Amino acid sequence: MLQIREAEEQDFDQIWTIFRQIVSAGESYAYPQETSKEEAFEIWMKQTQKTFVCLENEDILATYYIKQNQPGAGSHVCNCGYMVAAESRGRGLATLMCEHSQDTAQKLGYKAMQFNLVLVSNEQAVQLWDNLGFKTVGRIPKAFKHPKLDFVDALIMYKWF
Amino acid sequence: MLQIREAEEQDFDQIWTIFRQIVSAGESYAYPQETSKEEAFEIWMKQTQKTFVCLENEDILATYYIKQNQPGAGSHVCNCGYMVAAESRGRGLATLMCEHSQDTAQKLGYKAMQFNLVLVSNEQAVQLWDNLGFKTVGRIPKAFKHPKLDFVDALIMYKWF
Repeated sequence: MLQIREAEEQDFDQIWTIFRQIVSAGESYAYPQETSKEEAFEIWMKQTQKTFVCLENEDILATYYIKQNQPGAGSHVCNCGYMVAAESRGRGLATLMCEHSQDTAQKLGYKAMQFNLVLVSNEQAVQLWDNLGFKTVGRIPKAFKHPKLDFVDALIMYKWF
Repeated sequence: MLQIREAEEQDFDQIWTIFRQIVSAGESYAYPQETSKEEAFEIWMKQTQKTFVCLENEDILATYYIKQNQPGAGSHVCNCGYMVAAESRGRGLATLMCEHSQDTAQKLGYKAMQFNLVLVSNEQAVQLWDNLGFKTVGRIPKAFKHPKLDFVDALIMYKWF
């Protein structure tokens, strides 16, 4: 039975396992590959508005955050980031979390959601956000230094609710 | 005689006059219009890599910052912000600072510069960055709540050196 709820501080050991797995590979997020557990806690749990976990029984399979993309006159647009544990991919958890995050965003009063750095090499993600109604509103040449592909373009994807 | 040099802490009273003038109008930057002097100091002097001032004799006429646009695999792209005092506009100071910032960026090892939120309503800025070789790589619908124009689209402008 899958459940999505707000993350608590004691969830972080399990979140860290997922975060480290994804960030150390350096193929999707722009966080430094050597980001420490303490820095990851700041990034994922503190510098966000809310953080959620997706659980099956007691196991955390995936996590997402929501925060303002810009302050002030840009604060009606939120930004989210999603991470799914390698062993839980292919089960639709990213879709589940993205739908949940859109509900959360609207409850928090946001009018739109923006992803700032979707790598064109991450075809599955591009397809997924596209299926969920996000439009590609920009493409930044060579925005990301990929460990295997060298410089990769990144898309900006956006959905007005 | 115009001079551009790195900002020092004692410059901040003059920087604050410019910052407040521009930010309280709410028509270009996404910082909250009511941003305090202490918050402005954090934003413009601390959460940046370097901050510069443009002086004539002892008077600060304009200022800019440079910082990473993204960490990690995105850290070869910098972001800059520029502010010119109302009474010093029309003298080419934004051009002067942008050229200076491109030199600074390259000395710091950056490969590109990105502006994340250039309002389409700010035609002078769009034209200026265009003249200086920046390409429009994205357009975010209704990204900015303008006090007079309601929701305004924002451009992402980018230059690979």
